[in-house]
Amino acid sequence: MPSSQDFAAFERRLADDAAATQAMLDRLLGEAAEAGEIHRPARLVAAMRHAALGGGKRLRPFLMIETARMFGVENDGVVRAAAGLELLHCYSLVHDDLPAMDDDDLRRGRPTVHKAFDEATAILAGDALLTLAFDVMAAPATHANAEIRADLTLRLARAAGLGGMAGGQALDLAAEAADAPLSHAEIARLQAMKTGALILFAVEAGAILGQADAAARAALSRYGAVIGEAFQIADDILDAEGDEAALGKRAGKDAERNKATFVSVLGLEGARRRLSDLVAEAQAALDDLGPQAATGVLRATARFIAERRN
Amino acid sequence: MPSSQDFAAFERRLADDAAATQAMLDRLLGEAAEAGEIHRPARLVAAMRHAALGGGKRLRPFLMIETARMFGVENDGVVRAAAGLELLHCYSLVHDDLPAMDDDDLRRGRPTVHKAFDEATAILAGDALLTLAFDVMAAPATHANAEIRADLTLRLARAAGLGGMAGGQALDLAAEAADAPLSHAEIARLQAMKTGALILFAVEAGAILGQADAAARAALSRYGAVIGEAFQIADDILDAEGDEAALGKRAGKDAERNKATFVSVLGLEGARRRLSDLVAEAQAALDDLGPQAATGVLRATARFIAERRN
Repeated sequence: MPSSQDFAAFERRLADDAAATQAMLDRLLGEAAEAGEIHRPARLVAAMRHAALGGGKRLRPFLMIETARMFGVENDGVVRAAAGLELLHCYSLVHDDLPAMDDDDLRRGRPTVHKAFDEATAILAGDALLTLAFDVMAAPATHANAEIRADLTLRLARAAGLGGMAGGQALDLAAEAADAPLSHAEIARLQAMKTGALILFAVEAGAILGQADAAARAALSRYGAVIGEAFQIADDILDAEGDEAALGKRAGKDAERNKATFVSVLGLEGARRRLSDLVAEAQAALDDLGPQAATGVLRATARFIAERRN
Repeated sequence: MPSSQDFAAFERRLADDAAATQAMLDRLLGEAAEAGEIHRPARLVAAMRHAALGGGKRLRPFLMIETARMFGVENDGVVRAAAGLELLHCYSLVHDDLPAMDDDDLRRGRPTVHKAFDEATAILAGDALLTLAFDVMAAPATHANAEIRADLTLRLARAAGLGGMAGGQALDLAAEAADAPLSHAEIARLQAMKTGALILFAVEAGAILGQADAAARAALSRYGAVIGEAFQIADDILDAEGDEAALGKRAGKDAERNKATFVSVLGLEGARRRLSDLVAEAQAALDDLGPQAATGVLRATARFIAERRN
């Protein structure tokens, strides 16, 4: 189990990495805007900045940065790749919030992009954020080795596409429209695509940037898959328990929509037990990295994901 | 000037390359669907196939394939890259057609994706097509050299993003909402982003895949920029002349919306003169490749773009 020292280190790192990610996002969105400066699609740039610079825990960038750091790799390129992943995550929030999708007005305590701007601008801002994510992954400034850039790009596309996030969102919409509720296995599969794939990518990309060996990469992939599921179960528990002020978005939405979640199929206690098992599994995966590995921050992250209040 | 023999060769090639592109799109969308098979986001797959396999001239893939072929390079990887570009083009059509954007019901003579399916599915299908485009560019099957894959990916992202297609679409929406009509220079700039960037990318990617030298790449970039503008002027002329049956979509939309186009600022005759100047410029750019270059098909393409009826 992580010590309280590890947890303090974790919290410091989480804040530091979020600040580094924020600064990089600001820089990337500034550069992208400058490249189109003479043409001034000013409203689109403002919408992209609203979507990407509005805060958040920056958990995915954090996982990438800290996984690479475990292998002694920390540099601007890693932060660029991490910010690229966050751009893609932000695109998914913008599109998920659209009236035709989840129809949400509030995100991170602020109006969603289609509320702050308009629907067309929100669609385009999501498109441009998604595109910029791949721009960042493929750019030489992210890594000197083109094999690594192409690998990161391909894995990100797989995590985000039909077999990952977009496919999971489609299944989620289909489930809401269907009569029969999903089984536990179906929910786990859906969420592994919708939410898990990007979290797993964050860890795997960190291992690639850290040039981890095959055994370490396998252990970290197991860790990434497990915390991805834990993240979603914690999310379902938070929604069921409902503290809107802490969440910065509407709570109780799942029950309102009669949506199948980990809580609806396992019950609140069952979901909490599964969450605690997953945290133990995450620690076991990290054990496989060997006693000399600096796993403190990733261990604390698994605990944090299970215990977070927003 | 191209001979009638060149033009016959052009028409044969256009049909052959469209068939090769169609087969590759079918394969790519089959593979992507299989990767998510166990999860079956069947409606999303169907929407992506509706968007990508519904025909069209496949002009962008054609330009890429033929430019590479000029340098003796023709293989499956080139067709993959060409199909990747077409996936991205198809995403842009799906999102542009959405109710919040251009609100079109008809595309290539068939219902648009949000009409044939629903709005949420159309948004997601566009997202997944865009993501798959980058998947294809970055995948080892497209080219053995990762430098080339990363370069294609980066250039495609730049052509599609804020400084390219998405930015151009945002400017177009802003122009429709504005009081003052755009000037000729503003329309040219907007269209170079919205339409021109992907056409230019098609030619540049072909030159990269053909491993053209710097001088040839510069000449081809000039050609690509010129035919991109020609393509849009021809489009505006077709919309103004309005033959819905031939177009497979509604005509006269621009005037209806009081939209500034090349025709509205230059007049129909002025637009035709500019188009003919651009075709001459395209031929001059190809002259720079030297007398031994096999420029027949690209010369015929410039003529075709200016003279097409749909």
